[in-house]
Amino acid sequence: MSAASDLSASTTSDPLARMRVVLVRTSHPGNIGATARAMLTMGLDRLVLVAPRRFPDPAADARASGATAVLARATVVESLDAALAGAVLTIGLSARPREFAGQVLPVRAAAERAVATAPHGEVALVFGTEMSGLSNEDLARCAVVATIPANPGYASLNLAAAVQVAAYELRVAAGQGAVWTAPRFAPASHDEIEGLHAHAVRTLAAMRFLDPAMPKRLMPRLRRLFARAGLEREEVNILRGILARIDALIDGARRS
Amino acid sequence: MSAASDLSASTTSDPLARMRVVLVRTSHPGNIGATARAMLTMGLDRLVLVAPRRFPDPAADARASGATAVLARATVVESLDAALAGAVLTIGLSARPREFAGQVLPVRAAAERAVATAPHGEVALVFGTEMSGLSNEDLARCAVVATIPANPGYASLNLAAAVQVAAYELRVAAGQGAVWTAPRFAPASHDEIEGLHAHAVRTLAAMRFLDPAMPKRLMPRLRRLFARAGLEREEVNILRGILARIDALIDGARRS
Repeated sequence: MSAASDLSASTTSDPLARMRVVLVRTSHPGNIGATARAMLTMGLDRLVLVAPRRFPDPAADARASGATAVLARATVVESLDAALAGAVLTIGLSARPREFAGQVLPVRAAAERAVATAPHGEVALVFGTEMSGLSNEDLARCAVVATIPANPGYASLNLAAAVQVAAYELRVAAGQGAVWTAPRFAPASHDEIEGLHAHAVRTLAAMRFLDPAMPKRLMPRLRRLFARAGLEREEVNILRGILARIDALIDGARRS
Repeated sequence: MSAASDLSASTTSDPLARMRVVLVRTSHPGNIGATARAMLTMGLDRLVLVAPRRFPDPAADARASGATAVLARATVVESLDAALAGAVLTIGLSARPREFAGQVLPVRAAAERAVATAPHGEVALVFGTEMSGLSNEDLARCAVVATIPANPGYASLNLAAAVQVAAYELRVAAGQGAVWTAPRFAPASHDEIEGLHAHAVRTLAAMRFLDPAMPKRLMPRLRRLFARAGLEREEVNILRGILARIDALIDGARRS
């Protein structure tokens, strides 16, 4: 396994490809499937199962949704040591406080450590059983404990939910946390914006909404609103179109 | 509803108590239950359901595990507007890029915005259907879109998994991300540590493992190791005990 990890170490620079999710003695195959799905949504695909009660199993496939390939590639081993072989950093997840000798980190800091360590080799994230998590013995074999902050009155994260949060933090720590952005259109220039404000002062005064002798509160509030929004050119054109229409209405009213 | 939110605004300072999770037209009651569980693990308990296909339902209770109280208090409404009434910030979750007019933020930044806004009133997080998420129409009613970073090749987070990640980010943003820490024992003092290093130099030289004429590499490496670990007093005592035992062995060998 150490030869295999050396090989993968030399052929990839994606830290997420160095992450191994280890599930210890999972009771319900559905949770294994949901874990595979949670992993793949964040770009992880290496699953190691230590003595699962039932695997493979149709319930695992059903809950994996489109991530059955992760299950197909999963490795089943008999001991935690076999699951951790070759890893240069081992992180055990635990909600419960324990007599743990090593370092305890919030999952965000642990994910940052995992990504920083990945250039040196593989990193294993270890999750215990649905009912009681990792045993003290299993936890003692991990270099670091990671904890997901939770409601002290009800810290009962589902296994796959815990994997989802940890995998999400790994993805963000790996610098792959970019998301789509709304389309941006041409911003208005300074003089277009000043032209709008000047027009607004004229029209609001003509409407007798603004008192030109006491303009103190209104215009700064409108400036603040539009500055915060970050006006686009097309929006300035729309607003000036509305002002021009009001100008015409006032003109019409004066003439009649 | 606005009177109710004013009331809650005046009676709590916990930002998480101001967060409302809104599920729109959820198909599977099991996902509603899993959402309740995900919420409660992070300290959220206000669930609003817009036109759920089946609710209440035994499948929802089963998946909620110990969080059935969240389901019992859940509100069912017929329209998204009813679900959003009284909220001063509305955040729609969407994985898919859209023609969205407002601001698109990674879920972490959106959670920070939500917590910063909470002193002014309630915040709603809105999640769409399992199959297609929020419609463009529903999303247009939200002030902000939040996106969970995900694998572009498989961004299919389960509904409750998405709620879990968002609720986790809210909890961390609310400053409630503290976790348990391992017990710390009395640290060794500077002179205890220097005593250990001096003892190690003597013993390692007597063992002929350290060449006193060329001590350059060994002792700095050992100092580095122990500095990184942060030695405790008891550990210094154990290590000096081992050195003393080696001293005795060397003495015995010399005498015989």
